[in-house]
Amino acid sequence: MKRPKLAVTVLGDGGWGTTLALHAHRLRHNVRWWGAFPDYLALISRRRQNIRYLPGVAIPPALRIVPDLCKAVESADIIILAIPSQHMRKVLARLSKFRLPAQAHFVSVAKGLELESLKRMSELIMEELGKVSLAVLSGPNIAAEIARGYPASSVVACAKSADARFIQSALMNERLRLYTSKDVAGVELGGALKNPIAIAAGIGDGLGFGPNTKAALITRGVVEIARLGKAMGAGEDTFRGLSGLGDLITTCFSGRNRWLGEQLGKGHSLKSVLASTPMVMEGVSTAKAAVALARRHKVELPIIEQVCAVLFRNRSPQKALHILMTRTGKDE
Amino acid sequence: MKRPKLAVTVLGDGGWGTTLALHAHRLRHNVRWWGAFPDYLALISRRRQNIRYLPGVAIPPALRIVPDLCKAVESADIIILAIPSQHMRKVLARLSKFRLPAQAHFVSVAKGLELESLKRMSELIMEELGKVSLAVLSGPNIAAEIARGYPASSVVACAKSADARFIQSALMNERLRLYTSKDVAGVELGGALKNPIAIAAGIGDGLGFGPNTKAALITRGVVEIARLGKAMGAGEDTFRGLSGLGDLITTCFSGRNRWLGEQLGKGHSLKSVLASTPMVMEGVSTAKAAVALARRHKVELPIIEQVCAVLFRNRSPQKALHILMTRTGKDE
Repeated sequence: MKRPKLAVTVLGDGGWGTTLALHAHRLRHNVRWWGAFPDYLALISRRRQNIRYLPGVAIPPALRIVPDLCKAVESADIIILAIPSQHMRKVLARLSKFRLPAQAHFVSVAKGLELESLKRMSELIMEELGKVSLAVLSGPNIAAEIARGYPASSVVACAKSADARFIQSALMNERLRLYTSKDVAGVELGGALKNPIAIAAGIGDGLGFGPNTKAALITRGVVEIARLGKAMGAGEDTFRGLSGLGDLITTCFSGRNRWLGEQLGKGHSLKSVLASTPMVMEGVSTAKAAVALARRHKVELPIIEQVCAVLFRNRSPQKALHILMTRTGKDE
Repeated sequence: MKRPKLAVTVLGDGGWGTTLALHAHRLRHNVRWWGAFPDYLALISRRRQNIRYLPGVAIPPALRIVPDLCKAVESADIIILAIPSQHMRKVLARLSKFRLPAQAHFVSVAKGLELESLKRMSELIMEELGKVSLAVLSGPNIAAEIARGYPASSVVACAKSADARFIQSALMNERLRLYTSKDVAGVELGGALKNPIAIAAGIGDGLGFGPNTKAALITRGVVEIARLGKAMGAGEDTFRGLSGLGDLITTCFSGRNRWLGEQLGKGHSLKSVLASTPMVMEGVSTAKAAVALARRHKVELPIIEQVCAVLFRNRSPQKALHILMTRTGKDE
């Protein structure tokens, strides 16, 4: 497959944004990379390394870092939005003031919900930018692994199949397989809702429990995610695929939200854990948003509710996990 | 819930048999434990430890080890069959010669298929023992974890609900939650077919790949298992539950079949790996049986077929994993 050389802009200087900028650069696209903090971008430029969010991975000099947002998106073919969910609207609002390139395809890779509005990232993009070509990319993707070229796969979802295939052919290679889907809501919700479940899995780790406990949490977790997703109009099968179950598994075994849960399980407070890392923990706000959505859609989220109780209501991790493991449920 | 004291017999001196004997003993049942090798049973009796298959876990003196099979099953209420799949028929043939207690409930916990006949363990039991009360117990259960009292959950499947509930109430406690199911074939096939997938996951580990690769193998693996299971008359949903997906996840992250795959991925030969351990690797014969069943039922098992190529046809692990990760599949 011959891949055309495209102008690809990546917005966001986190680990995933960095990785996708590197990935697009390796695919020989013309890459521009922007982040919200000019001082930090300057540091990355000097060191050719994202010390804080992707340490140990060299950023080649040819990968252009562009501190001016307007110049970063000018005549771009693909604009990848790798912005934390709670900051997405701010960046979109800034973008909405520019004359955006007509041919631009937006790709959201943020895995969260806006806490205030309980909306998905694609909904925010449409609200702020109007009717643009819009895809979401989500799957079992640990940034540091993909940055190092380990094989992985992910899902590109778009209401229009042709747009999904355009993104697929532009960003897929042997190392990162991309599958297309039409279920934008399902792919977004799978990516967002796995994070609170991963916090629960981490709590189990922190309490010293092993894979039996984790497998039970994942198996019940995917049912819980699908229940809410279905009530919100997503396709149920999507949650059983790579962007649902696949991502959930990866995140429950290795990821920052699992790590956060582990610290809680070991007895540290949420405040002290969040203060100890520069990383954004999407699962914390997503847990809160999910419980609000569950109330609105009248579904039960037993695992995420226990996670919220630990995060925000001082429930002990022991008690939360005990409640989960002893819930009455006679038939499977 | 008040639990009646029952006569529980466990047949099999492997890690899982040992664990279930300990578990039943902790539930204050009257436990008898038998294994096929009198010399090894004598060693266990002397050391009060199953050195080979469950080292480091003390076996209390009150747990009775009974080297005579006939005496072990005499007037038993529950007979747990924890025998490796390829030896199950031999033990059943011996049992068929005794006058078995009329009230006995048989519980198979073996996770494999008979290679010669391609039959499930419950089919073997009915063939050899006739119409006995019969349940299967399977789920995400690492023996060493349950032996140490970590929380876990599992599924008891039985065609008759009343029999499943009897086993559930006899063997469930706070640490080991048991869920009932009517889908005997689905629970058995999930338990058996996860092992070859775990070998694939281990191959990925041996080649140095991380959780992204593993999550993709698990997500696609459960689809593959369900496809064959459905063709064989099992309920599709069973494969998404604890005894299917749950067990698959556990086994792909920690278990002997994963370990076997890892050794293959590191370049060791099957022969040398099998020679290095006393453990029975159910996944090796199950992979072969699964491919034969897939042919019979005309379904595709891409992952298990690659595992068979590595196990039996000298395909390099690199090539097998490469084929899996680059299979064309446009839509999810």
